Amino acid sequence: MNRAHNFSAGPATLPTEVLVKAQAELLDYKGAGASIMEVSHRGKEFDPVFDSAKARMKRLLGLSEKHHVMFLQGGATHQFFMIPMNFLNKGDSADYLNTGVWSQKAIKEARIYGDIKIPYSSEQSGFNRVPSANEVRFNPSAKFVHYTSNNTIYGTQFSTEPNTNGIPLVCDASSDFLSRPIDIDKYGLIYAGAQKNLGPSGAAVVILDDEFLKKAHTDNIPTYLQYGSHTGELYHTPPTFTIYLIDLVLEWLENLGGVAAMEIINKQKAKMLYCAIDDDDFYENQVETDSRSKMNVLFRIKNRDLESVFLKEAEAHNLIGLKAHRSTGGIRASLYNAVSLQSVEILVDFMSDFRRRFG
Amino acid sequence: MNRAHNFSAGPATLPTEVLVKAQAELLDYKGAGASIMEVSHRGKEFDPVFDSAKARMKRLLGLSEKHHVMFLQGGATHQFFMIPMNFLNKGDSADYLNTGVWSQKAIKEARIYGDIKIPYSSEQSGFNRVPSANEVRFNPSAKFVHYTSNNTIYGTQFSTEPNTNGIPLVCDASSDFLSRPIDIDKYGLIYAGAQKNLGPSGAAVVILDDEFLKKAHTDNIPTYLQYGSHTGELYHTPPTFTIYLIDLVLEWLENLGGVAAMEIINKQKAKMLYCAIDDDDFYENQVETDSRSKMNVLFRIKNRDLESVFLKEAEAHNLIGLKAHRSTGGIRASLYNAVSLQSVEILVDFMSDFRRRFG
Repeated sequence: MNRAHNFSAGPATLPTEVLVKAQAELLDYKGAGASIMEVSHRGKEFDPVFDSAKARMKRLLGLSEKHHVMFLQGGATHQFFMIPMNFLNKGDSADYLNTGVWSQKAIKEARIYGDIKIPYSSEQSGFNRVPSANEVRFNPSAKFVHYTSNNTIYGTQFSTEPNTNGIPLVCDASSDFLSRPIDIDKYGLIYAGAQKNLGPSGAAVVILDDEFLKKAHTDNIPTYLQYGSHTGELYHTPPTFTIYLIDLVLEWLENLGGVAAMEIINKQKAKMLYCAIDDDDFYENQVETDSRSKMNVLFRIKNRDLESVFLKEAEAHNLIGLKAHRSTGGIRASLYNAVSLQSVEILVDFMSDFRRRFG
Repeated sequence: MNRAHNFSAGPATLPTEVLVKAQAELLDYKGAGASIMEVSHRGKEFDPVFDSAKARMKRLLGLSEKHHVMFLQGGATHQFFMIPMNFLNKGDSADYLNTGVWSQKAIKEARIYGDIKIPYSSEQSGFNRVPSANEVRFNPSAKFVHYTSNNTIYGTQFSTEPNTNGIPLVCDASSDFLSRPIDIDKYGLIYAGAQKNLGPSGAAVVILDDEFLKKAHTDNIPTYLQYGSHTGELYHTPPTFTIYLIDLVLEWLENLGGVAAMEIINKQKAKMLYCAIDDDDFYENQVETDSRSKMNVLFRIKNRDLESVFLKEAEAHNLIGLKAHRSTGGIRASLYNAVSLQSVEILVDFMSDFRRRFG
């Protein structure tokens, strides 16, 4: 079986163990005579899967009774409009931090529903940094503060939550969700597209504080788009196979020791790669040091002409998904939870060899 | 490998060949060193899958250049509000036929956006029929006529499209999509949740006539919820693995001869089962004969006490998914495309044996 070292930014690599289990059960789930994707979403096979995925998420993040865990469709993009639609009444304002393309997309949709203020933007410097915890002054009347905890395209990441003096945080954590512990009490809502650290594309996980939910309105909002429709019994058919895979990924993460244990490994992986980049002037990373992402590591080769050679040779060495987003160019290694330390070691060895030959 | 005879109403059985292929490719898609769910949605592996699924759909339904094929998230439920949101301006009206729970859900959401008229309802008679083609008089100013072509819960199905005198049809075809040829020129938009005849849950297929799309407005509609956002290049990350499975199901259907060939088999299956029900007074079906569904066949045992025995024994005989919806009670065999003639023969044999023993 050929499994490459997969550094794709998303949809991204999954733990091989998870796919092996899914493969074994694909035609006959625990003796049901059918795949888990071929049975009712309100039946004896899927019910425990759904409950398990929610319970594991609660354990992994240390959630309490007041937190709702939802698996919604449409990815993070769907949340960009659902959040302001539910939480902003006409005339309400919210603060959005602009740290990249995904922040901007969230801002664009939010402006349909309220007065959106941008107390911080790193656009002028090409999104090469994020603010430190106490750097931003927030609008005291903001209903919430929205930020993107990790910026996949630019390779930046908040090292800690912005200090908002009690204004609830709403966070797009798509590309660093479950990669490290978070201070859950600061959040009204956290959302994450599944296709980075959680499973295949086709779902977003939403963690919603019940106190924050109470501030939502429902006027002229379709039933589907009201968060309150998804807190109790299933409102409609969820993406059952996707949730099943998420449950397997969460099981894998629990067996590994949870998010604190995961963070230690993620730090090791990132450190190893940044060290290789910083080693001399052959490679470079243009992100401010304190803002460097542990999930998406961008780098360039000083001699730009060598980048296409690097990507081609890397692929020949079974190192895939390394091409950066078209808007930045260069090379990007995404080091999500399921990327092993060993894969990063092999990448670093390859980089070292490449430098030796072309440097 | 244990594969039951699976009559689930949805998520429903898939062709075994499709799952066998997906299983073989699950960890390494065509030598990529990664699963199709682990690679970019804008890359060399997924691009051909996406194009193939759209091309197959166009061939199977005889679509022309003017038709858009979309794979959207949120299932049919998500379309319930997206359609009126896009196609009704304030004060506009639309006609909705009320033939069951799913029609009612569509009506409820549509009322947020326009003046919804109900020129036909079979609610009084317990939704035991649908209207014939020329039975309903439509409101000439209706922007569209919405109907549910097959009613999964009640076991009714339109044998042909309602005659609307040129008003565009909008159809929830979730539970009979691709089960028979349709007269595509009558439709402005057809949608179908994937989890009956197409694949796993987590997507809805939307077929949209470009002439109809031109009538859509975009005022205050989030980008994601505008149909126009989904007609060209990918707007966001789609549910890639779900679309991959849909493509495999469409390949299976093309190899089988397409929707015309499928209709012949579906008619055989339904005929065999209705004959078994009508054979004497032991079983009964309460749907008007002309409205009987070829996809979801409901039946009761005159002696209601025997129904739980029937379901239990059926399961022991590897016949699963036969319990009807909680709102009707009784027994329901869903005969979607992937349910084989052989499975129906075995069900009919079991019914005959059960009647012999308990009749």
